[in-house]
Amino acid sequence: MKKVGVAILGLGAVGGGAYRVLTEHREFFQKTQHVDLSVESVLEPRTGRLDALGVPQPLRATNIAEVVANPDVNLIVECIGGVDAAKEYCLDALKTGKTVVTSNKELYAKFSHELELAAKRHNAGLYFEGSCVGGVPIVRTLLDGLQSNVITSLVGIVDGTANFILTCMTDCGMTYEEALCEARALGYPASAEEGYDAAYKLSILASLAFHAKVPFAKVAREGVSAISREDIEDGAALGYRVKPLAIARNTQEGIDVRVCPAFVAKEHPLAAVGGTYNAVFVTGDAVGDVMLYGKGAGELPTGSAIVSDIIYAATHEGSRYSTYANTEEEGKETRFSADPSAAYYVRIAALDAAGVLAKVAAVFSKQGISIAKIIRRDAAGKAKLLFVTHETRASAMQAAAAKLKAMTAVDVERILEVVV
Amino acid sequence: MKKVGVAILGLGAVGGGAYRVLTEHREFFQKTQHVDLSVESVLEPRTGRLDALGVPQPLRATNIAEVVANPDVNLIVECIGGVDAAKEYCLDALKTGKTVVTSNKELYAKFSHELELAAKRHNAGLYFEGSCVGGVPIVRTLLDGLQSNVITSLVGIVDGTANFILTCMTDCGMTYEEALCEARALGYPASAEEGYDAAYKLSILASLAFHAKVPFAKVAREGVSAISREDIEDGAALGYRVKPLAIARNTQEGIDVRVCPAFVAKEHPLAAVGGTYNAVFVTGDAVGDVMLYGKGAGELPTGSAIVSDIIYAATHEGSRYSTYANTEEEGKETRFSADPSAAYYVRIAALDAAGVLAKVAAVFSKQGISIAKIIRRDAAGKAKLLFVTHETRASAMQAAAAKLKAMTAVDVERILEVVV
Repeated sequence: MKKVGVAILGLGAVGGGAYRVLTEHREFFQKTQHVDLSVESVLEPRTGRLDALGVPQPLRATNIAEVVANPDVNLIVECIGGVDAAKEYCLDALKTGKTVVTSNKELYAKFSHELELAAKRHNAGLYFEGSCVGGVPIVRTLLDGLQSNVITSLVGIVDGTANFILTCMTDCGMTYEEALCEARALGYPASAEEGYDAAYKLSILASLAFHAKVPFAKVAREGVSAISREDIEDGAALGYRVKPLAIARNTQEGIDVRVCPAFVAKEHPLAAVGGTYNAVFVTGDAVGDVMLYGKGAGELPTGSAIVSDIIYAATHEGSRYSTYANTEEEGKETRFSADPSAAYYVRIAALDAAGVLAKVAAVFSKQGISIAKIIRRDAAGKAKLLFVTHETRASAMQAAAAKLKAMTAVDVERILEVVV
Repeated sequence: MKKVGVAILGLGAVGGGAYRVLTEHREFFQKTQHVDLSVESVLEPRTGRLDALGVPQPLRATNIAEVVANPDVNLIVECIGGVDAAKEYCLDALKTGKTVVTSNKELYAKFSHELELAAKRHNAGLYFEGSCVGGVPIVRTLLDGLQSNVITSLVGIVDGTANFILTCMTDCGMTYEEALCEARALGYPASAEEGYDAAYKLSILASLAFHAKVPFAKVAREGVSAISREDIEDGAALGYRVKPLAIARNTQEGIDVRVCPAFVAKEHPLAAVGGTYNAVFVTGDAVGDVMLYGKGAGELPTGSAIVSDIIYAATHEGSRYSTYANTEEEGKETRFSADPSAAYYVRIAALDAAGVLAKVAAVFSKQGISIAKIIRRDAAGKAKLLFVTHETRASAMQAAAAKLKAMTAVDVERILEVVV
């Protein structure tokens, strides 16, 4: 039976999850996968973590050089997080021909090119399923299951905390602040700068889906903290739910990538993805619509992804390079859409709705924006006008918004995309 | 660039879909997958189909021997359907070391063992993604994405026509007969004997998920034709939707596999799978719940699965055997659950509800069945009692049902499983 010696760098939640799955299932993998996955080394400065997980003394390494030099280690799992040390350690391992498995989205989004070149040069494997959407096997699906398709769009709910917050606001009537408190009380991670984690994931997934290099910096970002109860309730009145989306579209004019809260039709499968669950909805030219749903984070789901990569590496030695790496080689430039199209929700507060409606409609009309739905309601002496547009250019919507904002009797309270 | 010569046996909807994806995307696959997939031979007796798809004259084969002997053919796609000729042709191809890709669920469910032995003996590849749930890459996901998990259950909506019928009944208020007419008018396939197709798929998927041999004959089958509007409406009143499920559970006591209509909680992701869409909901010990959703049938979705297998075969030559084959080798016996547990919905019509309720409750109580929900409603002079039980043994429910049926004032109208 083939034996694979594994080293784990970092025993945080994710590294600990990988350690648990590997040690608790060693016999199961021998029986079902015909590989012996043996943890040979663990690099973790916190003795408490090592003790808590019962890592035997001889396995405890003190520095990366020791791990890389260990002849019993064939494969290194990077779970230390951050980018500086993580990148250095991964490169150290790849340079000695050892396979690297990482769940570090920031690292992979920012330095995939450098890592993949090193892997290729030194004939080492490089796997990153755990970096995107935890336990949902979306990387494998894009590479090995939907590779027969030209993929035209990928829309994901990839931020579990943001989804939890919006779900609480939608289903339990909470305000944003109440839902955030609840998320914090439950220990869900919330990045200080909104949308970064989702943007890392979208950069990786869009690159894979579209066989292109989609740098992190190209992903437009908008968090969910501006979403109000009014947005949620107006969405419901119009037949939508507000969801924290990561959107990637591949059109004739180029690629468009954004992270933002948006309206999703309440019958759409993404609308049913609640709580901390994640999902990725992919559209391919042959397969049509496919959705993958599952836990996007957490010790064991991400551990599942890491161990899946380890088994894949052990059982697919002849096929170690991702198409992502291959695309890089071609050196082609990715074209981004200069003026993407989308449908929009626009909420306007007006002092005198009767007179204003005609003026507002004229502004939309002048920009060639046609209206799909409209609701008028009263609110504290004002009239609220809720519009849903047909698909239009972002530039047209921006121009209309600027015109509307310049009008005296009108207040543009919210503009959100309507995705599906 | 690696070149793969492909032969297609049978140009029906699925074979035609595979032909279209292969020929229309040949350049795309050269660029993105670095393989040249070239259709070298097509075996199809209907000249009309060959003409309709524009198959060049030199590619048209007249018999299987010619295809198998063709030195330009490395891989054979079996889309002729049925089992006799299909099996013979696949074995012919495997015996010459040619890789076989099949979308034939009946063939794979019934003869996987024989096919896999031949593949192994002659060092040939064998792939069957298209046999289960069309364009949804569930086979690849079980083999390469969730293999790090002990999978405890797999619940699928794998019969698109049955799902369409129940969706019409639920969302449009149709009767079963009206919905069936609608499905036929739209050309959806409906197997003469209900539940067979789903049972083939469940046999294959449960075998993969549980690393066990789950023969088709072990799958209990019940179609959706007995479902009435009353079942749909009572389900809604209790918070459920009726869905056509394929259920596989792996418990301490053994495996339990069934195809039947059942209640699904309306908040569950499977409840949102409507129309002809399919989905498979898998629970693993590390990853938790994962769902894959997509088109389960159709020319291009199944074509997508077949071509995905072809690309996988071309790019993963060193790792061609499925764990299914490996499990077979061990020769271990699969243990099936003798008396599985489930929750049930029971609808009873009674002449005198007041007096009868106590008697009915006593029957459940005597079998140790506890009740989770109960609704009483009037219907044409009778009282209808709707019960949802907590989880109980099948034998206890059978015993209770027998007792209830023996009572004079009571009519047991429907028993359905409540799955999630």
